[in-house]
Amino acid sequence: MTEDTFLAKASALLGPRGLTADADLMQPWLTDWRGRFTGKALAMASPATTAEVAALVALCAAHGVPIVPQGGNSSMSGGATPDEGGASLLLSLRRLNAIRALDREERKATCEAGVVLHTLHEAADEAGLRFPLTLGGKGSATIGGLISTNAGGGQVLRHGSMRAQVLGLEAVLADGSVFSQLTPLKKDNRGFDLKQLMIGSEGTLGIVTAATLRLLPAVADRVVIWAGVASLKAARALLLHCDDAAGAALEQFEVLPQRCLDAVLDYLPDSRAPLAEAHPWHALIEVVADRSSAEGLRERCEAMMAGAFEQGLVTDAAIAASESQAEAFWLLRESIAPAERAKGPAVQHDISVPVERMPEFVEAAVPAIEAAWPGTEAVAFGHLGDGNVHFHVLAPAGQDMSWTTADGATISHEVNDLVTRWGGSISAEHGIGQLKRDELARLGDPVALDIMRRVKAALDPAGLLNPGKLV
Amino acid sequence: MTEDTFLAKASALLGPRGLTADADLMQPWLTDWRGRFTGKALAMASPATTAEVAALVALCAAHGVPIVPQGGNSSMSGGATPDEGGASLLLSLRRLNAIRALDREERKATCEAGVVLHTLHEAADEAGLRFPLTLGGKGSATIGGLISTNAGGGQVLRHGSMRAQVLGLEAVLADGSVFSQLTPLKKDNRGFDLKQLMIGSEGTLGIVTAATLRLLPAVADRVVIWAGVASLKAARALLLHCDDAAGAALEQFEVLPQRCLDAVLDYLPDSRAPLAEAHPWHALIEVVADRSSAEGLRERCEAMMAGAFEQGLVTDAAIAASESQAEAFWLLRESIAPAERAKGPAVQHDISVPVERMPEFVEAAVPAIEAAWPGTEAVAFGHLGDGNVHFHVLAPAGQDMSWTTADGATISHEVNDLVTRWGGSISAEHGIGQLKRDELARLGDPVALDIMRRVKAALDPAGLLNPGKLV
Repeated sequence: MTEDTFLAKASALLGPRGLTADADLMQPWLTDWRGRFTGKALAMASPATTAEVAALVALCAAHGVPIVPQGGNSSMSGGATPDEGGASLLLSLRRLNAIRALDREERKATCEAGVVLHTLHEAADEAGLRFPLTLGGKGSATIGGLISTNAGGGQVLRHGSMRAQVLGLEAVLADGSVFSQLTPLKKDNRGFDLKQLMIGSEGTLGIVTAATLRLLPAVADRVVIWAGVASLKAARALLLHCDDAAGAALEQFEVLPQRCLDAVLDYLPDSRAPLAEAHPWHALIEVVADRSSAEGLRERCEAMMAGAFEQGLVTDAAIAASESQAEAFWLLRESIAPAERAKGPAVQHDISVPVERMPEFVEAAVPAIEAAWPGTEAVAFGHLGDGNVHFHVLAPAGQDMSWTTADGATISHEVNDLVTRWGGSISAEHGIGQLKRDELARLGDPVALDIMRRVKAALDPAGLLNPGKLV
Repeated sequence: MTEDTFLAKASALLGPRGLTADADLMQPWLTDWRGRFTGKALAMASPATTAEVAALVALCAAHGVPIVPQGGNSSMSGGATPDEGGASLLLSLRRLNAIRALDREERKATCEAGVVLHTLHEAADEAGLRFPLTLGGKGSATIGGLISTNAGGGQVLRHGSMRAQVLGLEAVLADGSVFSQLTPLKKDNRGFDLKQLMIGSEGTLGIVTAATLRLLPAVADRVVIWAGVASLKAARALLLHCDDAAGAALEQFEVLPQRCLDAVLDYLPDSRAPLAEAHPWHALIEVVADRSSAEGLRERCEAMMAGAFEQGLVTDAAIAASESQAEAFWLLRESIAPAERAKGPAVQHDISVPVERMPEFVEAAVPAIEAAWPGTEAVAFGHLGDGNVHFHVLAPAGQDMSWTTADGATISHEVNDLVTRWGGSISAEHGIGQLKRDELARLGDPVALDIMRRVKAALDPAGLLNPGKLV
């Protein structure tokens, strides 16, 4: 039988640590972390080197075995979960976990795909540097997964998404050949930017095995500010003001409505509101500086906020007086998602529109959804500076999880329609995976979809790389 | 005859201003500006709108007519010059010259492909902003050409190449369909980054018709420094020091050897050397600040240079005392190319290697070339901060232009071999065009070349877009 031949060959290639078909060992990796998708796999391969990945992919190509690459299994869109057919090989990149090099002078690190984000943060920190991208799943998310999904986070405002951090890339292509462009050249115009083509392609064009990433000087000082504002429009005016005043030092600018803050305060036992009164919207602002510009940072921030008061952009504001208060501010922001989960079922949408249209969009979409589905509660919060909010719709009281696939699904459909009409994206950060594939096919630009399908067919004619995802 | 049918239809589509086959009118556009390539064309089309470009390309597709897109005709690599067959249509984008929108608050401008770079600079300036990319050909180079070749320049160090400036893109594909992604979304993870695929593809995958570009706050203050250093290695140490001290304010870091400076001083009648003595290498450093960080800029630069002296990184240095002195410093740098042309024939190489290897590379390559071809003079100058130097080899005294295609060609071959062995790029800034196509095929990574050819075949199966260039 072909399948047995393939497994025998794969086993010979990878050794006992490198391949398993044991159901118990595979089980944790066959369900996505949000628990929405569960699949089956022929086996789980865990190669330890790029050469092993290449040989394995060539073997898969020869036998026609589909491959589902997986890093930390923390995709928000089911992007790393196989389908239920059981014919795919689950390809874990977690054993490729070396930081091959870290160059302090040139501020770059070459990491294998399985390096966990938090591990890179620590390594950069030890070298007196930092890696300027972080997100909730940093303890499990891997460099390979972050690159394949072009991960974002709050710092995109200043530093860009994962795409902007990648200086060099190594990936195994569908035929097992290795695309190797790890040596970063700051200028290189020898044709198409294939590195950028791979980034964000969710493993459908190639399997990222390593990358050279940029590092930045360590943060020497930060100032965290909590501001109460009258509206989301006022929040955007405040954003423009801060951007003018702080320039490149403005690191993050997050927003949340009062109802989000209330939910967090209910959820966190010992928390307190940063400001004495309630405000329609709140902004959480972080300004940071490295050693070259740390002098006078706090004074500059005080002047910035004084200017904001003078212009009537804020109603009230507090500058964190200590690092522990700064952390307390951030804890409120980071607790929005768990606080919401404690309230009951919800459908989440990770959307973006042009920054300047975001206030108008939220002010139109929230009441529209709540009116059409009585009893629901729609909240938008997140990265205003990137035009990216998490738009969540909470089920009416008393509903169970089945609501998310009934009314919830219809609501998602409507939210995606709205976003598309506003010139936005139905996936700002989390990728398409299997979760949004049908919606992308329904709402995506036909010309762009056609190019994607052509490129996919050109690079993976047999369709073996992460089938059922994205395209 | 098919050709006449095609021309009649194209003429009907574009009107009298939009199509000409007049030899005198076409002549200036059929030779590249360096005078290396001269081609022939069926006709020159000058559509005025994206819709006209789309209809014309569809017509070309129907009739199998190859298309050579052209902006300001200032390609350094013959990238916009048709071949000698005369079957191609020269497609000028120069009439697509509107700045469709400029948003001061969101700091972005939507420009058509034919907008000249200098025009964009002026428009940004009027809005109190700036477009952070410039180069020698700014008076003729167009936005479409700059995007298609991913143009660079001295400011790449801080702001990145053209690729980093493009927020949104509109392009006509080989079948005449329009890829339209002009509305910038700061976060958008709906699949492959097709915009990045088009950028730098030299018109072989699509014809750029418009783009939304980012703008930055205007420069409020700048400090220009001329430093004499003992070696290129010392220049790099100085670069690292300035990068630490000035951080994001470090805008440009150029280097040139004494022999380059001597040639410029000979060439420019009223010029004088910025420093009293000769030095093996010179660095030209620009530090700039917008309004948010202008305060104390000069003092910070003085402290930066004092630190450099203390650490023995510089032998001598002068901080320009006035804007006119700053301009005089820059004039020396900008006169290297004309001064060199005045000295006689030369072959030019626009190359990059990893920044940290550049000193070693230059110190190895210059004597190697000069020893192998006695009488030649090899000079490297340019953007050390990007690992990108212009490596020029001047002919022995008494040679005429025929030298460039005899010994000169052999030398170029050798330089490209050297760069490739050092992990570098044979085209850092200028693209491949027709000039370096054979060298790319000879020296490029076969895996990368294979992907490029597959993508090209997928998006332009008939090979009608800028044939004979790049791939």
